[in-house]
Amino acid sequence: MKVPESLQELTELSQRIHTYNSILTLLHWDQETYMPPGGIGARSQQIAELSHLIHEEKTSKKFHACLEKLAHVKHLSREQEAMHREWLREWERATKLPASFVKTYSQVTSEASQIWSTAKKENNYKLFAPFLSKILKLAREKAAILGFSEHPYDALLESYEPCMTTKRVALIFKELKEELVLLLGKVGKKSQVDNSFLKKKVDEKKQHKISLGLLEKLPLDHASSRLDLSAHPFSLALHPTDSRITTRFLPHSFLSNIFSILHEVGHSLYEMGLPSERWGTPLGEPVSLTIHESQSRWWETLIGRSLPFWKFYYPSLRTQLPFLKRVPLERFYSAMHTVTPSFIRVEADEVTYCLHVILRFEIEQLLISDQLQVADLPEAWNHKMKELLGIVPPTDSQGCLQDIHWSLGDFGYFPTYALGNLAAAQFFATFAKAHPDWEKRVAVGELGFIRDWLKENIHRWGKIYNTDQLIKRVTDKPLSPTAYCHYLKNKYTQTT
Amino acid sequence: MKVPESLQELTELSQRIHTYNSILTLLHWDQETYMPPGGIGARSQQIAELSHLIHEEKTSKKFHACLEKLAHVKHLSREQEAMHREWLREWERATKLPASFVKTYSQVTSEASQIWSTAKKENNYKLFAPFLSKILKLAREKAAILGFSEHPYDALLESYEPCMTTKRVALIFKELKEELVLLLGKVGKKSQVDNSFLKKKVDEKKQHKISLGLLEKLPLDHASSRLDLSAHPFSLALHPTDSRITTRFLPHSFLSNIFSILHEVGHSLYEMGLPSERWGTPLGEPVSLTIHESQSRWWETLIGRSLPFWKFYYPSLRTQLPFLKRVPLERFYSAMHTVTPSFIRVEADEVTYCLHVILRFEIEQLLISDQLQVADLPEAWNHKMKELLGIVPPTDSQGCLQDIHWSLGDFGYFPTYALGNLAAAQFFATFAKAHPDWEKRVAVGELGFIRDWLKENIHRWGKIYNTDQLIKRVTDKPLSPTAYCHYLKNKYTQTT
Repeated sequence: MKVPESLQELTELSQRIHTYNSILTLLHWDQETYMPPGGIGARSQQIAELSHLIHEEKTSKKFHACLEKLAHVKHLSREQEAMHREWLREWERATKLPASFVKTYSQVTSEASQIWSTAKKENNYKLFAPFLSKILKLAREKAAILGFSEHPYDALLESYEPCMTTKRVALIFKELKEELVLLLGKVGKKSQVDNSFLKKKVDEKKQHKISLGLLEKLPLDHASSRLDLSAHPFSLALHPTDSRITTRFLPHSFLSNIFSILHEVGHSLYEMGLPSERWGTPLGEPVSLTIHESQSRWWETLIGRSLPFWKFYYPSLRTQLPFLKRVPLERFYSAMHTVTPSFIRVEADEVTYCLHVILRFEIEQLLISDQLQVADLPEAWNHKMKELLGIVPPTDSQGCLQDIHWSLGDFGYFPTYALGNLAAAQFFATFAKAHPDWEKRVAVGELGFIRDWLKENIHRWGKIYNTDQLIKRVTDKPLSPTAYCHYLKNKYTQTT
Repeated sequence: MKVPESLQELTELSQRIHTYNSILTLLHWDQETYMPPGGIGARSQQIAELSHLIHEEKTSKKFHACLEKLAHVKHLSREQEAMHREWLREWERATKLPASFVKTYSQVTSEASQIWSTAKKENNYKLFAPFLSKILKLAREKAAILGFSEHPYDALLESYEPCMTTKRVALIFKELKEELVLLLGKVGKKSQVDNSFLKKKVDEKKQHKISLGLLEKLPLDHASSRLDLSAHPFSLALHPTDSRITTRFLPHSFLSNIFSILHEVGHSLYEMGLPSERWGTPLGEPVSLTIHESQSRWWETLIGRSLPFWKFYYPSLRTQLPFLKRVPLERFYSAMHTVTPSFIRVEADEVTYCLHVILRFEIEQLLISDQLQVADLPEAWNHKMKELLGIVPPTDSQGCLQDIHWSLGDFGYFPTYALGNLAAAQFFATFAKAHPDWEKRVAVGELGFIRDWLKENIHRWGKIYNTDQLIKRVTDKPLSPTAYCHYLKNKYTQTT
């Protein structure tokens, strides 16, 4: 089949934009890893200049003209239709927001994230409050510009998960919340095991060695990836052949490093599993943050917190941490699955994690629709913590100031963290049926077949299917909390 | 004084080009330090795309129109005139070479440098020869496009040192060669000291510690610089506030690391000494490769190989290398100044170094003017080695295949290595007059006043003066071998 000329041209334009974006990714990676602190001013300038260029390319007349031409081409293949759909969506979003608005948004949030950092350090919510007000005003304006049918939050959510509406997330979260609160009640009643050996001090050098040892066991192409250190763990990919993850070493939580690596490797494997030959087009792009998060949580929790994985990995970890010699696998595994309501989302266990997300989702809606005043946020936060988790943070730093997202203007991002968990569990149910022997294989360190299954069923499709279509295709069901709740109940009412 | 509008516009265009260039610098730095090997394909694409963009900006109609307008503005200040002169020169060079030629040049040399690497490893000149022929053809074509009045080599030389012509370099090198050959004859007659302790094995960890200790003693802004490892040491600056150097650890030559660091720090201090507020314009740019190399050789040789520096630094190095405990400073200093004709330029001592450069300069002219055939290069090389240094390399890998430059098409680059040495010594004579107590101060670790002198006299001027004007301004004399030969004679006829 002949490729229409307009599609050829759009592919070239799209590849150029992706190349610029991959350079932007390197600027961000370098900023978080090796850049000398003095270079921050020059870096901001580089990022601003390149972002401006990308915005110009994305909204160019040529891009639009090609899109118009392509719209009139008949008999497009499924792939070509997907490309057209995604390019059109991107073009519409890019052109809706005026360049001046994007610039203001970027400037205000850049300043606000600095202030947030200080406010969190000093437990000073009042310092951050006026900036949050400014950002909320801009976020509402953004929603109005982008447009929405029911709730302004819909427009924001769409940036991270185009398939979702506020109403639908609310429905899913309602069911999830009920199940989790119930489960927490049950699991909380049981006596918790001693997990003090998880808090033993492990120095950076040792943790680094553990990290490299772990990476070697994971089914990652080591010639196309690398591990570095940063203040907060992250994963960034310049290309399927150049994927970079970071971790951090908390002296009194060696597990934090291990799970961070598993999490980021999940993101990385997704990027590396995208079809290289389609790179630079929507067919070579990840579907959405929901699907991305499903891949990181897959490796962090469904595999990384499974008994078979620890049967395989624990002996090697034990040789590196002599104080584990007297801790049998079963005790270690139980300790790692302690369920305790806690204040900080990123440190939460599997049962409580989504409750932290639901809290943020509920508060974000109130803030965006002006039903909750910025001055009243700490009280509303603490009230909801009490309601969902039964505890109240002693400080705002451990409460509504803990996450960077709002200072960056990222309203609508949080839900994808929970949705990713649900999708992961749902995918996993299908996977386990296809590989009934998965536990046996994982227990002897076979992990490549899992990566291959994910690549075959999820990664290789790029954006041909959207989140809903992909989930339906793989699991034969729409996204719901069923599989996730089943997984949790099954695991936690047995092991604790 | 009001700034002409055209100058304002040119400044903005120039700053944007410099921002893109600084991003390009990061792409190169990352490629040589941390990039996963699998990422090379994507990196080539990123570099090609950004280079293309830079070329478009440099040759844009708008840039030219502003230049034309500025040419008609009267009463420009000295700074403004310098900016106009440099922008015009850049624009002329950029527009002379057609984009297709630049692309071909880049493709051929990219392939050739890969082949060269194999040919050097396998001592297989015949493998490289056809590529060298291709590159020479392109280099001659380049010279023809750029234009020249006397020798095609002039056009190539100009890329690296606009003030020089083949004739002038030949004159300078003639005098230098005579002096060096004479000095080598004298120094060679004396008995050489035992320097076996310089070849003791020092592991990477120890060498890394030595590197960091040394850097701390140097007058570098540590918040704006960093040290990493790469196959060959280099220095790259994204901005005066973000300067990066690399080194390498040869297990049997700990001095190689120390002198590499001193050399690269010299380059780095130059970039950091350029006026930040003029960044992005010619007033914030280094003058030429000659002046750049004068700065690196200043710190590597004039300071780094001086007795006062080692009086200061040796005690600290000794605590890190216990085998030096029985080696007194005088013996160490003498050993470090052993003069021996050797095959490899980058390992050459101060006396023979420039002879290696002169050899390349003479051969390059013959190759470019087609007086020497590619097939006859190894023989010509060996013949000249015999003539200048009295030795013949046993293999081509240690002979005409040793440097990467020709495979990259960098004809005309080598002379600046020697010219930089001459300029450094000439600057140093002025400096020593201004600071007659420099030896005393350096011996106690005072180095900041040297950096300040260089900044005041050389760095802060950016490109206001060209190489000739700057040297004349600082030293009151045109560039000549006199100061350098005086320095060498003074040093080597006393210490060995």
